[in-house]
Amino acid sequence: MQGSRAKISPSIDLREAYSMVRAYTEALCEPLEIEDYIPQPTVDVSPVKWNIAHTTWFFEEMVLKRFSRNYQVFDPNFAFLFNSYYNTIGDRTRRDNRGDLSRPTVKRVFEYRKYVDYEMGNLVADEFTEPVRDLVVLGLNHEQQHQELLLTDLKFTLSGNPLFPVYRDDFLSEEQIENGNGGNVEMEGGVYEIGFAGNGFCFDNELARHKVLLQDYQIANRLVTNGEFIEFIEDGGYENFTLWHSEGWDWVNQNGIDSALYWHREGRDWFNYTLGGLRKVNPAAPVCHVSYYEAAAFAEWKDARLPTEFEWEAASEKFDWGLRWEWTNSAYLPYPGFRKAPGAVGEYNGKFMINQMVLRGASVVTPQGHSRPTYRNFFHPHLRWQFTGIRLAT
Amino acid sequence: MQGSRAKISPSIDLREAYSMVRAYTEALCEPLEIEDYIPQPTVDVSPVKWNIAHTTWFFEEMVLKRFSRNYQVFDPNFAFLFNSYYNTIGDRTRRDNRGDLSRPTVKRVFEYRKYVDYEMGNLVADEFTEPVRDLVVLGLNHEQQHQELLLTDLKFTLSGNPLFPVYRDDFLSEEQIENGNGGNVEMEGGVYEIGFAGNGFCFDNELARHKVLLQDYQIANRLVTNGEFIEFIEDGGYENFTLWHSEGWDWVNQNGIDSALYWHREGRDWFNYTLGGLRKVNPAAPVCHVSYYEAAAFAEWKDARLPTEFEWEAASEKFDWGLRWEWTNSAYLPYPGFRKAPGAVGEYNGKFMINQMVLRGASVVTPQGHSRPTYRNFFHPHLRWQFTGIRLAT
Amino acid sequence: MQGSRAKISPSIDLREAYSMVRAYTEALCEPLEIEDYIPQPTVDVSPVKWNIAHTTWFFEEMVLKRFSRNYQVFDPNFAFLFNSYYNTIGDRTRRDNRGDLSRPTVKRVFEYRKYVDYEMGNLVADEFTEPVRDLVVLGLNHEQQHQELLLTDLKFTLSGNPLFPVYRDDFLSEEQIENGNGGNVEMEGGVYEIGFAGNGFCFDNELARHKVLLQDYQIANRLVTNGEFIEFIEDGGYENFTLWHSEGWDWVNQNGIDSALYWHREGRDWFNYTLGGLRKVNPAAPVCHVSYYEAAAFAEWKDARLPTEFEWEAASEKFDWGLRWEWTNSAYLPYPGFRKAPGAVGEYNGKFMINQMVLRGASVVTPQGHSRPTYRNFFHPHLRWQFTGIRLAT
Amino acid sequence: MQGSRAKISPSIDLREAYSMVRAYTEALCEPLEIEDYIPQPTVDVSPVKWNIAHTTWFFEEMVLKRFSRNYQVFDPNFAFLFNSYYNTIGDRTRRDNRGDLSRPTVKRVFEYRKYVDYEMGNLVADEFTEPVRDLVVLGLNHEQQHQELLLTDLKFTLSGNPLFPVYRDDFLSEEQIENGNGGNVEMEGGVYEIGFAGNGFCFDNELARHKVLLQDYQIANRLVTNGEFIEFIEDGGYENFTLWHSEGWDWVNQNGIDSALYWHREGRDWFNYTLGGLRKVNPAAPVCHVSYYEAAAFAEWKDARLPTEFEWEAASEKFDWGLRWEWTNSAYLPYPGFRKAPGAVGEYNGKFMINQMVLRGASVVTPQGHSRPTYRNFFHPHLRWQFTGIRLAT
Repeated sequence: MQGSRAKISPSIDLREAYSMVRAYTEALCEPLEIEDYIPQPTVDVSPVKWNIAHTTWFFEEMVLKRFSRNYQVFDPNFAFLFNSYYNTIGDRTRRDNRGDLSRPTVKRVFEYRKYVDYEMGNLVADEFTEPVRDLVVLGLNHEQQHQELLLTDLKFTLSGNPLFPVYRDDFLSEEQIENGNGGNVEMEGGVYEIGFAGNGFCFDNELARHKVLLQDYQIANRLVTNGEFIEFIEDGGYENFTLWHSEGWDWVNQNGIDSALYWHREGRDWFNYTLGGLRKVNPAAPVCHVSYYEAAAFAEWKDARLPTEFEWEAASEKFDWGLRWEWTNSAYLPYPGFRKAPGAVGEYNGKFMINQMVLRGASVVTPQGHSRPTYRNFFHPHLRWQFTGIRLAT
Repeated sequence: MQGSRAKISPSIDLREAYSMVRAYTEALCEPLEIEDYIPQPTVDVSPVKWNIAHTTWFFEEMVLKRFSRNYQVFDPNFAFLFNSYYNTIGDRTRRDNRGDLSRPTVKRVFEYRKYVDYEMGNLVADEFTEPVRDLVVLGLNHEQQHQELLLTDLKFTLSGNPLFPVYRDDFLSEEQIENGNGGNVEMEGGVYEIGFAGNGFCFDNELARHKVLLQDYQIANRLVTNGEFIEFIEDGGYENFTLWHSEGWDWVNQNGIDSALYWHREGRDWFNYTLGGLRKVNPAAPVCHVSYYEAAAFAEWKDARLPTEFEWEAASEKFDWGLRWEWTNSAYLPYPGFRKAPGAVGEYNGKFMINQMVLRGASVVTPQGHSRPTYRNFFHPHLRWQFTGIRLAT
Repeated sequence: MQGSRAKISPSIDLREAYSMVRAYTEALCEPLEIEDYIPQPTVDVSPVKWNIAHTTWFFEEMVLKRFSRNYQVFDPNFAFLFNSYYNTIGDRTRRDNRGDLSRPTVKRVFEYRKYVDYEMGNLVADEFTEPVRDLVVLGLNHEQQHQELLLTDLKFTLSGNPLFPVYRDDFLSEEQIENGNGGNVEMEGGVYEIGFAGNGFCFDNELARHKVLLQDYQIANRLVTNGEFIEFIEDGGYENFTLWHSEGWDWVNQNGIDSALYWHREGRDWFNYTLGGLRKVNPAAPVCHVSYYEAAAFAEWKDARLPTEFEWEAASEKFDWGLRWEWTNSAYLPYPGFRKAPGAVGEYNGKFMINQMVLRGASVVTPQGHSRPTYRNFFHPHLRWQFTGIRLAT
Repeated sequence: MQGSRAKISPSIDLREAYSMVRAYTEALCEPLEIEDYIPQPTVDVSPVKWNIAHTTWFFEEMVLKRFSRNYQVFDPNFAFLFNSYYNTIGDRTRRDNRGDLSRPTVKRVFEYRKYVDYEMGNLVADEFTEPVRDLVVLGLNHEQQHQELLLTDLKFTLSGNPLFPVYRDDFLSEEQIENGNGGNVEMEGGVYEIGFAGNGFCFDNELARHKVLLQDYQIANRLVTNGEFIEFIEDGGYENFTLWHSEGWDWVNQNGIDSALYWHREGRDWFNYTLGGLRKVNPAAPVCHVSYYEAAAFAEWKDARLPTEFEWEAASEKFDWGLRWEWTNSAYLPYPGFRKAPGAVGEYNGKFMINQMVLRGASVVTPQGHSRPTYRNFFHPHLRWQFTGIRLAT
């Protein structure tokens, strides 16, 4: 299944890319029961139904309504129901209300997908001008982000069920993945170019490419493992406030945090919930589902630190990445010369540039080819339902 | 559909009653999509799936596990998943978490119903001793309460959907029901007997039957109508604090309340959401879905008051009732000599006897024959998703 | 000090009563530091400064502004600052904001008292008509309620200070009071007259006097003691949910309640904070500062119950009372024929008749002669900063 | 008064510096009533009493207890009561509880100051070793920070009082300060040295000094004025979500924000509350008390941006500063090579390096000589009770 993840490269035909990306979303849904599409256990998590409708809404709203002559809207209510945060486009359902909506049915939402895909097919033939191409490429990258979120959110939803439901028995378990060699990459200080360059697609937050001055540093070849994280727990890491940010310490205590998300202790053994069901924790696999606070406390405990996003990017060709989204010690802020686009597309990134920390890399649920060394993901420091991990620097 | 509502009378064969009540629950589910079984939009409302599993759990837990020899539990997890508030029986899912559970599937829950019904059928033949009969009758009355709740909760869930989904086009709309004649019943003061008497079933909170001394009073023949409630609104009833309890006034202002629940104003017209979809408000129908606070403020505005539950019961043979659950001005407290049963069954009523007000009567979604003049329902004063109404007294 | 508590009897001269009541408020303040007048640790508790200004405001607003010719308001801002809940009279400070107000100073508030007292003295001479007399008597009873609240609130405020400040070393400690004999009063069922009769003052909630039919019952001669309450604790009373109302059980668990308010365990000994400082709990003294939930759970544990307010009143001449306000199992609701007065005075009682339970009796901080057998106090069932106690019935 | 603000320079005698700084704290208290020392209207604001006790506690805890032979603690409870956030040193009062503590009295806290000052005087003579000197200098800088906070917090506390109390009539009003000339400083891109250098005191967060690569930029000579901010308001700045960060927009709407803090509109005029009382807004003075969200939205509206902290520091010799703390677009993060000290002193800065934005400069309430071009202040982006302002860059 991983092999079929579509990569949107400049060389690929856009019609083919559209088909592949859209089909991959539906392939991800195959193991699901209708009931699985509905719940929203917390405000940050969207129902599967919402994810698959919203990605379709993007093409209807941004492309078809604007560029397809005589386009008939599938259902005028959907503009309201499946908008996410685009204030420019008008009212939307309250974000914490998405799990309350039993209708439209899942069947109806798949009809919506089919209808929009058909109309996009017509459009591709006739009206594929430059601005349309750009929006389609953006829409496909947007859909890939929601493919990742679909699995991320689904895992969180199923994890709260005492039955520990299995998504797919043969799903590439997070726990089966072995980590690389130890040791560090030695990096020399100096001026490095940061940000996207080239002809392919990138998000606006990867621009402008600019020079950054770095000091000498070391960055680990491999991610922190479950085994190392168990050592941290057993050494009292969660009870020692000197390791923590002040707000991290409050978060630990107010929420009774004492291990990575999805971990369960039974006697002396650790288990974790995966999309393949409840599994024994593999000490050799990279630790997953930790918050920035935990990543930073772990680094402090190791007498190390998290790399900045610039350090990560400058060294990224020298180590393997792609198993976990990796926390950096950089806040999510604009690059010099960053400009947001006018209109709804401009709401994509810039307005989130506060109170969040940058993640670099990709994870086991990232669609193939979606990420790149300049890609900037970002989350609030207490969140951990994303497949996050830790790489150390000194 | 209303006609098929099972009445559990002493004369009926208990096996027949069991079949009819259980079948009626499933008949109520016929118009539903699978998606409709899942959401829990607020903590007081349970998902349909939970309602139909919990009523089955009652028979498994209270009857089969205890009285059926060699009974094999259908799924040991269900004891945990579908317990409601019976602390005596062990852990249960957090009440606000029920809408997060996509599994077990709806199909599986109906298999659970079938399995338990089959086992109950065997039990009926062999082991129908007196204590079993009592528990079965209690279980059927319990299931009827959940039939009412199923529609009450479903209405709330669907009402939050901007699509205003229709449950059944031919469902006996609340709005189509005409109200009785005006005028009052004149009641003379004196000693009245209050509480259940006779051989049939009643809940423990209807006992002990005892004497109460009442003053002279008048009680209205009919319920307050939508038309009268619109007058209250148009006269500024929601803006005039002198009409309200202090906590009612806070509730109005903190929640921006300005009409009955489910009402929508469009221009000069009022519409309300019903299980038959969005309908124009019928001024002649009794007002529905008001809180105790609104009922009491309306009464104050009319220079009247709400009857006590004793006044209501003493006069109940002299007026028509059964369209709305009617708010009284009595707090839900034990009658003299009330004793709760030992064990889980004793958790049924007594532990809720604080902070709630008594409702008397029955409503359009109450199963036929389920209620009686001595029946005591109870809700917190700010709640209004139940089919509540207003009858005045002076 | 207790001896000087003013009793407002019909026979007393009203000018004398005014002086005595007003002086007693100021006597209560003598041991205080200026700092003690300011804090408001929780929304239900008012600062001392607010209590002494608000009682003065009552006379200015209700009497002087309306009946004293050419009356010059002391400070126009005070009408806003020291109104409590009288919506009829205009805006008021948010109730949870009172502790944030450092100005006016305490000195200035005492000048306000002196000014109003002087003006009231003039009024007494010239314009003491019947309606003025009634308002003055109401104002004095109102001030006595705030004398009680002043000590009740002050105790709560000081109790949160790790220094356990002493209000008065020689203050009649709650712990020094011995309780009466054991045994029960036997009461015969029948019709009893309930509510105030006579020529003296009563609050509107004590009216109308009316007949109530009671069953046979027994009511304890004495209050439950600290010693008995310690037995309840040691027998696991706080861990046994079968003893509790459902909402009481939630309250216990959400707040980690495991003893009466102000109790501290040190090793095997219990101490409690009193207005005389931290003292060892006296097993023979009546238990104090328990919620309705705790009172009801204790009664359940004793296989008894709380009396109704009618049972209490009917038997009140046969036992001693006055040490604790005693929880009853009656909700605070209007008597038959209750009518609230028009205007601000009508806001005194009626609008609170929901969600509260009735307390009967009086406590060690009630001004002498303020209470009577028909007096109805009322609090929410989870509150316990009032000097509440338990009397059992069966 | 401003003239007497003590400057701690390397050349000054430390005993003299100690006297001057400590005396300045007490001078700031002169206009206060005892009541003003008590309230804590919100968790971020500390009572005056707490500020003046806590600064004293610092010297007792960090210096006297450790370095003064035979030192007798003034009151052992104070270690608990007046600790702020130093987990290393043991329990402390809950931060939101400080306003509930009427005792110790203000008089007692001033005795505490006198006692500690006397003991510090003895220490200076005998034991002024290098580590003691360093701690004393840190303690004086700490006290200067609390001098600033004392006025900042006091302003917030008094501002909530409908009487608009005057702190000092002759207090240098924020509104009387005229702003500099318009125009921009043109800065060339290149490598700049950032962070503290030299022999004097600096906080650990100003280290290590390191090189940063900047692009060409322009930075305004003067701060944004009230007049410009009124234009922003009148142009609908608070209603136009395209100007705002997503979380900023939520903050505006959830809190009903429509002007700078302390502003009041009366008809067409704007007034603001100052420590000199309510004054008319001066259009020529720099705007004050805006959040980061408002600063960023204003910059967006002007088609500009906020400078980074590095741009600010590199240009700081070329413009006037010192009237407002100026928001930058830099998150508060460690410099390369930052190391926190061991023990309680190490809790000073590092543990706050998340979720906060950097402010540069100084304000009208900053003690003279306390700040410097490398000084880093930091607040959460929604806070605005600090004397914050806006300088634009492009």
